[in-house]
This record gives sequence, structure tokens and C-alpha cells, in this order.
Amino acid sequence: MSLSIKPVKGARDFYPDDMRLQKYLFGVMRSVCERYGYEEYDAPILEPTDLYLSKGNEEIVREQTYTFRDRGDRSVTLRTEMTPSVSRMVAAKRQELAYPLRWYSIPQCWRYERMQRGRGREFYQLNVDIFGVEDISADLEMIIMADAILKAYGAKPKMYEIRVNSRKDLNQRIEKAGIKTSLAEVMRLIDKYEKLETTEFMAKLTAQVDSPKELMEYLAKGNAGKDLQDLISRAKTAGVTNIKFVPTIARGFDYYTDIVFEVFDVNPDNNRSMFGGGRYDGLVELFGADSLPAAGFAMGDITLRNFLETNGLLPKLLSETDVYVILMGDVFDAAQKPINELRNIGLNVAVDSTSRKADKQIKAAVKKGVRYALFIGDKELKSQRFTLKDLQTGQEQAQSLEEIGKIVNQSRI
Amino acid sequence: MSLSIKPVKGARDFYPDDMRLQKYLFGVMRSVCERYGYEEYDAPILEPTDLYLSKGNEEIVREQTYTFRDRGDRSVTLRTEMTPSVSRMVAAKRQELAYPLRWYSIPQCWRYERMQRGRGREFYQLNVDIFGVEDISADLEMIIMADAILKAYGAKPKMYEIRVNSRKDLNQRIEKAGIKTSLAEVMRLIDKYEKLETTEFMAKLTAQVDSPKELMEYLAKGNAGKDLQDLISRAKTAGVTNIKFVPTIARGFDYYTDIVFEVFDVNPDNNRSMFGGGRYDGLVELFGADSLPAAGFAMGDITLRNFLETNGLLPKLLSETDVYVILMGDVFDAAQKPINELRNIGLNVAVDSTSRKADKQIKAAVKKGVRYALFIGDKELKSQRFTLKDLQTGQEQAQSLEEIGKIVNQSRI
Repeated sequence: MSLSIKPVKGARDFYPDDMRLQKYLFGVMRSVCERYGYEEYDAPILEPTDLYLSKGNEEIVREQTYTFRDRGDRSVTLRTEMTPSVSRMVAAKRQELAYPLRWYSIPQCWRYERMQRGRGREFYQLNVDIFGVEDISADLEMIIMADAILKAYGAKPKMYEIRVNSRKDLNQRIEKAGIKTSLAEVMRLIDKYEKLETTEFMAKLTAQVDSPKELMEYLAKGNAGKDLQDLISRAKTAGVTNIKFVPTIARGFDYYTDIVFEVFDVNPDNNRSMFGGGRYDGLVELFGADSLPAAGFAMGDITLRNFLETNGLLPKLLSETDVYVILMGDVFDAAQKPINELRNIGLNVAVDSTSRKADKQIKAAVKKGVRYALFIGDKELKSQRFTLKDLQTGQEQAQSLEEIGKIVNQSRI
Repeated sequence: MSLSIKPVKGARDFYPDDMRLQKYLFGVMRSVCERYGYEEYDAPILEPTDLYLSKGNEEIVREQTYTFRDRGDRSVTLRTEMTPSVSRMVAAKRQELAYPLRWYSIPQCWRYERMQRGRGREFYQLNVDIFGVEDISADLEMIIMADAILKAYGAKPKMYEIRVNSRKDLNQRIEKAGIKTSLAEVMRLIDKYEKLETTEFMAKLTAQVDSPKELMEYLAKGNAGKDLQDLISRAKTAGVTNIKFVPTIARGFDYYTDIVFEVFDVNPDNNRSMFGGGRYDGLVELFGADSLPAAGFAMGDITLRNFLETNGLLPKLLSETDVYVILMGDVFDAAQKPINELRNIGLNVAVDSTSRKADKQIKAAVKKGVRYALFIGDKELKSQRFTLKDLQTGQEQAQSLEEIGKIVNQSRI
């Protein structure tokens, strides 16, 4: 019996075309983050299970992790999100690091979820975090950057909306309503507000608090507190026009302490939360370090890709290979010199070494999406003029290596 | 009790300084691979365990993997090497892909090994593979690229040596000597030739073959076959001067079928095999696809880093952040405009929003390794001239944003 050609269920193979798109997505993230003075870091994909048991989403930890015992009998878990890891790393060097600390990472995460359309068990996620800033300027920077990243992909403000809320305000309202269960449980219910029918939501809320009516009214049409108003007006001044207060934004994770935000796709066919973040001031302390204010957000690659696709924002990406060399006759060794000269000029050059007929070699170049074919045979090696064929237009010209370098370099701009 | 700040045993956290070096190492790999027309791909870090059980190193699979059952009761394994995954991916699209196929990847791999100096349980590994080329030009390209990558880091030919051998020739010699155990076992013994004392090696060889003496003579001072001679002479013509035939090069994995090579660090303090590769023609067939010739090599990041460090080839890398903005007074919002102008010119700019005294802000910039500090207060916002301080030289100058952009951009060249 032969081996299976499939990847594990819910995981993706990245063929060069997929990888090219992935590199484009990550490249934009990296460039915006670095523009704002953020530095990239990384942590192991395998973490001690304890790391996720403290303040994460219990549901995720108990039911949706890849958890096992290693050969040393330690319980380990494939990373489900990056916030616990980054908090651990910051706590480990709490005194040595210089604040404000601006860090980003694009880790892969794994969750054993029920399979459904547009959802896998593995995803990449940009994580942007700022540590050491207590005031609202940190929250503001997170929102400005989330917005800047979407704009860098070509997104227009009318395509999405940034919804903000304050967990602090929400906590007060919930406590005022009289909690029958727990604050975390009520919060998780409010997080599902948009997904549930009003009557169903009201019934569930009634089971969880003493005075559901007043809380319900606030959730439906409450006003923003002073901090939020300030945040929204400063974000607008900074050019984030599509921001608004939505009192039901709660976020799934328990560790959020104050401002939270979610970015919504407002396309009627795809109306849903794309990603979000918030302030999580208490997390670094859990590792025995001095407390440290923190805010951050995380953006998943699959949701982002869907958003860009729906809005026609995915670019058509060309092969990184500029030139495909067609060898005519037994000239492989002799052709290395001009080929290396082209590489030294900065061109990416692949060589067809199959000794097939030229038309089969050209066919391979076209299939690979390479723009130019270059013909090298005895005659060309003698004259040092080589025929360059533009496979998009069909145009051919005989040129020196230097000229070929110029033509190809210019075609990429 | 507080949570542990340590990563799992044998795994590395990458703080921004470590990550910067990692990005440099990977950047060089990517650039050389793409110069030779190779395209990047990726596969899941979790693979079905079966994938490694077929033709890998049994020892690794049985004793050194992170293997477990997922919540769907499938046996899965954290990737230990990339060759089985890339063979699986190629087999899955055997008919659609255009050959020769040139692929590379820089995956993370995990092996549960006994901890020793310079060895972790997690490592990254550049994988370069070419599919669809039967003749020796594929093996030649692998060797030329391995050499080109080391040279791109600044390595000199005298620092390392490329040792080549032919498994085909070696198989014949072993078979001629009369196998008592199995070909794979004798091969694994020969792979340890350099590490064992001659008498110990001879004793073990005597236990495994009928005529150890003749085989031993060949291993000690045999001559290269025709293919190998051809390969070596063509590599030398292509500028790989430090290549030589070594009849005891065997490589650990069972899947190699013909030419194999290893790159040795020749530094007397660090004399050992750094990385290698070879031809593995039979692997794609295991997935039920038509057979396909293949050759490749893999280069681990930890060994590479040690080699570069020993030879003084690790560059001093600066922070990606170009400018650290020191805010004087309550000007955070007003300062956004000039800051964004600098970002639009292409500068990476971090802002200190802590309202500390200026000297504390400067101290943070120095600690972060940022080259320039830029002072923004009411006066500067009015005059549109800002003081730029070079934190390396201490020099200060008041300039327009445009001039600042030029100065900083030029300092990076």
C-alpha cells in the first residue's frame, strides 16, 4: 500500500503559488509593523500546557488543543495563540528590557476545531503588542496600526469597521446588574450577542443576572464612557474614520482588562468579525514578574485572505524567477559563466538541464509563470549575444548580457 | 504559584536580537536559492506518523520523535525532517507540476534527542531540492548551491571542505564483501567511520561482512568512479575548489540512492560534518506516483550559526527601527503628522509615549540599539525643524523632515 499524499486533516500544504501569496501577506505585515518601530520575535510552537490553563479560554484549552506527553513525561501543547508565550518571554526578561516595548510576530497556531468552511485547524496570526504604556495612547496605536495594515493591502474605510468597547465599563454594568453565575460567563454570553436572536439572548441573560433589563438596554444603545470617547476622537484625528463604540464587543479571552476592539468586515455577504485585540494588563504578573501594562491585537491569515479576496484586493503575483534558460545542445558547463553573470547583476535564473527540445523547455517556463526565456547555444556563447524572449508578449531580441540585465530589472518595476 | 518563564526543554525563544540574526541567516538562504531559480514552499509541522515510518532513519522515528494521537485518534508526529513532506507534496501533484522542479523551504523540525552542547530539540533547516533531472547536473547544482550559500555568508574555501561519494559504488563494494546483516546496517556503520577508532570499526565491520579487509582498503584509500570524477571536475570548473572524494561518506538516511555529499568544517577545534545531501530517486514512488529523480540537501541553522561564529562571520546587525521620537510636553497627537511623514518617506519610527524626562527616553533608545533620536515639542512643531541626534556619535542637528529622511536613509547604506 502506498503512503497518503494528504496533509493532516485541517492543515495546509503551501505550494509555491500559495507560498508566494503568504509571503506577500506577511511582507505587508512586517513592513507596517517595522514602520511603527516594532521588532520581530518568535517562541517555540510547543509550550508547556500549563501556560494555556491559567487565563486563556477554558473551552479552547480543554477541548480544542493538540496536547500530549513528551518522552520526558511533560505535558506539552501546540501553541493555540501567542499572547501567553509573549507574556512569558517578557516576564523572563522583565528587568532587562527597555520600555515601551514594541514587539510583533507571525506565529503558526493550532486548534483542534470542528471542521467547517473557511476554518482550518492550523493558521498563522500576526501578533502586535506594546508593553509598558499605561495610558490610552497604547490602545490608540493598536487601532491605528490595525487600520494601517488593512490600508496597506489596499482596503478602503468603507469595507470594514472598527468597533471599540471598554471591558472596565462593561464589568461595572454587569456587576450592577447582579451576577448569578460569574463575570467571565456573562462576558462570554455578551461576546455572542451578535450571533444570537434577541429573545434567546435575553433568556440566557436573565438566567445569569438579577436585573437583565437595564443591562440589556445598555447593550442595545448605551453611550461610551469618557476614555472611549477620547480614544475614538483621537483615532479619527489620526485618520481612522470608520471607528465606532459598540457596547456588546467583549472578546473571547478572559485576560482582557479594559479597552477591547474588533475589526468587522461590513460586506453584507461576509459580515463578521475579522480580528481584534485589547488591553491585558495582568498577564505578565502571572509569571511572578512585576506588573506591566500591555495592549495588543492578533490578525489571522485565513480571515484576512478571505477579506482581501472578497474585495478583489489580492494582487496577481509573478514567479520570483526572472529568466528561464533554454540550453541548445551540450552546453551546460559552458553556459554557467553567462548565467552566473546574470545572477551577479541581480537576476533570478533557472536553467533547463533536461536536453529536451526547445519547445518543451519553453512550455515548462510558461507553466512556471516565468516572464523571460533566454536561449544559449554554441553560437550565442561565441557571439556573446543571447536571444531573450518575453513569454508574455512573444517578442524576441538578441542582446548582450548587460542589456538583458537592464531589460529584466526594469520589467519588475 | 506563578507560571514558569522557561520555554519547553531544548527549544529556543527568539528575542528580537536573536530573531534579527535568524532573519539575516534565512534572508541569505532565500536570496541565493531564488538566484538559482528555486521557489519557496511549506508543509504542516504536524504530519501523519506513517510518513516517517517508511524510509527514514528507524532510530529517529522510534526513539526521537514527538509522536501522539490527536483528538480524532490519528497518530501524528512533529516534523523531524522535510524530505518526506516535500516528496508527499510533489507526489500529490506529480502530473500538474512542470519539471525540472526547483523548490526550497526553511522549516522548523523537532527531534527528541539527548541534550548536549550545541544541540537542541528544535532547529530550522534549509531544504533545497530538484526533481526531474536524472543526470549528474542536478547533483552538481546541489553542490554549487551549498557552496554559493556559504560564500554568501562570507565563508572562504579554506574554512570548509565538500566531501562526495557514490552510494551506488559503495553498495557494490559492500555487496562484493558479502553482507551478514543488511545493506542499511553496514551503511550506517560506514557513516560512523570518522567517529570510531580504526580497530573498533574493523571489529564491527568484521561482524557485518564476510570479507572486511578488501572493503576496509577501499574505504581507506579507494579511487572515485567515473561519475564521481566527472562531478568533481565539473564542480571545480564551476569554482568549487574545495571538493574531494571520500569513500566513507554514507549519510544517515536510508533513502539516498546515488551521489551523496557532506560539507565539513575544517577548523581543527570544530572539525565535523555541518550538513549534506544527495540523490534520493525512489521516494516519490512510495506515494503511488510515477517515479521521479530527485536530489537535495539540508542545512541546519544551529550548525551554520556555530560555523559562522567560529569563523568570525556573524555580522553586527542594527535595530530595524531608524528613529526613536522623544516627545517633549503633551504633544502626542500633534506629533503624529510629522511622524507619519517620516514613515511615508520610508523610515521606521518608534515613539516614546511615556512622558518621562527626556534623558530617560534617550536611555531607552540607546538600550534598544536605535541609531537616531528625534526631539518633538511645541517649538519644533511650530518651526517644522526638528533636532536629530545621532546616538552613536552624539552629534545633533536641527533639520527639516525632508533632510532628516535623507540623512537617515543614507546612514543605512
